[in-house]
Amino acid sequence: MNQIVARSVIRGLINGRNCSRYISPSTVAILRPFDETAEVRGPVPSGALVLFGGAQWRRMMSTASSPADTPAAAAPPTAVAEKDRNESAVAEEKKGGDVMVSSYWGISRQKITREDGTVWPWNCFMPWETYQTDVSIDLSKHHVPKTFLDKIAFRTVKILRIPTDIFFQRRYGCRAMMLETVAAVPGMVGGMLLHLRSLRKFEHSGGWIKALLEEAENERMHLMTMVELVKPKWYERLLVLTVQGVFFNAFFVLYLLSPKLAHRVVGYLEEEAIHSYTEFLKDIDSGAIENVPAPAIAIDYWRLPKDATLKDVITVIRADEAHHRDVNHFASDIHFQGKELREAPAPLGYH
Amino acid sequence: MNQIVARSVIRGLINGRNCSRYISPSTVAILRPFDETAEVRGPVPSGALVLFGGAQWRRMMSTASSPADTPAAAAPPTAVAEKDRNESAVAEEKKGGDVMVSSYWGISRQKITREDGTVWPWNCFMPWETYQTDVSIDLSKHHVPKTFLDKIAFRTVKILRIPTDIFFQRRYGCRAMMLETVAAVPGMVGGMLLHLRSLRKFEHSGGWIKALLEEAENERMHLMTMVELVKPKWYERLLVLTVQGVFFNAFFVLYLLSPKLAHRVVGYLEEEAIHSYTEFLKDIDSGAIENVPAPAIAIDYWRLPKDATLKDVITVIRADEAHHRDVNHFASDIHFQGKELREAPAPLGYH
Repeated sequence: MNQIVARSVIRGLINGRNCSRYISPSTVAILRPFDETAEVRGPVPSGALVLFGGAQWRRMMSTASSPADTPAAAAPPTAVAEKDRNESAVAEEKKGGDVMVSSYWGISRQKITREDGTVWPWNCFMPWETYQTDVSIDLSKHHVPKTFLDKIAFRTVKILRIPTDIFFQRRYGCRAMMLETVAAVPGMVGGMLLHLRSLRKFEHSGGWIKALLEEAENERMHLMTMVELVKPKWYERLLVLTVQGVFFNAFFVLYLLSPKLAHRVVGYLEEEAIHSYTEFLKDIDSGAIENVPAPAIAIDYWRLPKDATLKDVITVIRADEAHHRDVNHFASDIHFQGKELREAPAPLGYH
Repeated sequence: MNQIVARSVIRGLINGRNCSRYISPSTVAILRPFDETAEVRGPVPSGALVLFGGAQWRRMMSTASSPADTPAAAAPPTAVAEKDRNESAVAEEKKGGDVMVSSYWGISRQKITREDGTVWPWNCFMPWETYQTDVSIDLSKHHVPKTFLDKIAFRTVKILRIPTDIFFQRRYGCRAMMLETVAAVPGMVGGMLLHLRSLRKFEHSGGWIKALLEEAENERMHLMTMVELVKPKWYERLLVLTVQGVFFNAFFVLYLLSPKLAHRVVGYLEEEAIHSYTEFLKDIDSGAIENVPAPAIAIDYWRLPKDATLKDVITVIRADEAHHRDVNHFASDIHFQGKELREAPAPLGYH
């Protein structure tokens, strides 16, 4: 384990620039080989996509799957595999050999474009996963701690805020970036544990697995946006490594012991996040933080206008946090009423 | 931890019937209170859904968020919270009081219907997540173990198969059900670890997080289908509990140490799964296993015809496993070429 952490630290420090490189125009170059493939125009009906995707993959797999329909199917798998490898190698040569990974599995990425026909540069999210946040959500809403567990959750979050305030003070860009690395953990832990529970008990999840994983995904997108604005320093990378190690395990155990408390804690964390982002916006208005143009990734993910600014981005991120607040307090309420999450349909697509 | 396991075991045994209960017509009753809300007709454009979902939730949140636009916003959060609770409680009374969980978070499930207008009874998957599998995929394709790691992966899987064959023999229904509880683990572990890595390194995932989580989701749906056909016995529930405990941790460590090997192992596991399902189909054809009508959940999830049978279900499940085989061998290939997954766009929507 120490080896892994050590390796991870070193790689982390070495790869300092990778995140920005990865979403630089060079990504478009990666797409070039697929120019010949059919296009998906986003946003696309997901249903249609699946169907289309199927057709699309079928087409790409045609050389690979053909043996099934020809006498070659009788050939031993080895021969088939070899045959496929050669065929796809040739195919890739034809395409210009700019493929990053050669594969005889017939797996390739379809070309995806925006509505205006320009190439979709992101692999970490697709046009049909983008959305417009409901910024009219009530930001002042607060769950008043009544029960003992509520009070524990509330106090814990308030106490956790003290070192954060001391460490970051009003460096909200940096603060937001660091906090999103933590905020993306609970959804993943919760989703994973509900998934394992669903398997163990042969039970449906009521959509909560997906709802929690969606939250984790969304928080990760916040991070991917913030990292475009603030480049993490080496000691911040080290801090994130440590904090994640501690928080992931702590939350994992907490969720096992009391999902009720775990969701309440997240609810309160989100209330704090709303506060931080509100302060962030104040500093933008006061000019203390420059209202730079929004990163391209944010404009695509939240369907923002081309001329959107940092202020617009922080506004939608804050609205996202408010939605997560509602979902987590709601989840906690369900447990407080002695029910299981799966008994109340999950609020999927609640943005 | 022991307490948790113990509790889990007891609950597991007690809830023996829950899984079937949850997707009985009573689910429709749960939806009744939302009859007044706007409808989503599935399959729905995901993009539109998000937008619509937003609008939908906005409408539902209207009472909750109104304080933001009225003098009431000036009232302390407590007052707002109380106000919301009362309002939604009243609203729920009006709706017939058949709501499973009362909430002042304004969170409720929109009514979803099929294309024919009938109520969508599932909460664990939505119409826009259903798909048609490419059953023409080459089932005979096999990755020939060449490197030392490949051989380890191949041997491990072959050895693991021995006890499975002895335990289940030709009881393929039971076998499939039990194996799907294991098959749904790797995708979730891989997706989670890539998610945490993405956060630690401030790096994009290239879509692999989603691709692996999709795999886990799909395998879980296989289980939800099988469980409709074969009811697990108490000792099988105990076995699943033990196996999951061991396999989850083993795979977690394996993926940390060598994702290359981990994905290869899954690739070979999927090759074995294809073999089992092929045997399953043989027994259906020979009449050894009765070709019962397909469960309703399978007809909706794979968009099968109303008169689909067990044979159709097993055929699409086998095709799913073949797709997972390709994805995992491909992922392993990427690592073998000294690259990271994020460097090769993930095959999202590959069915």
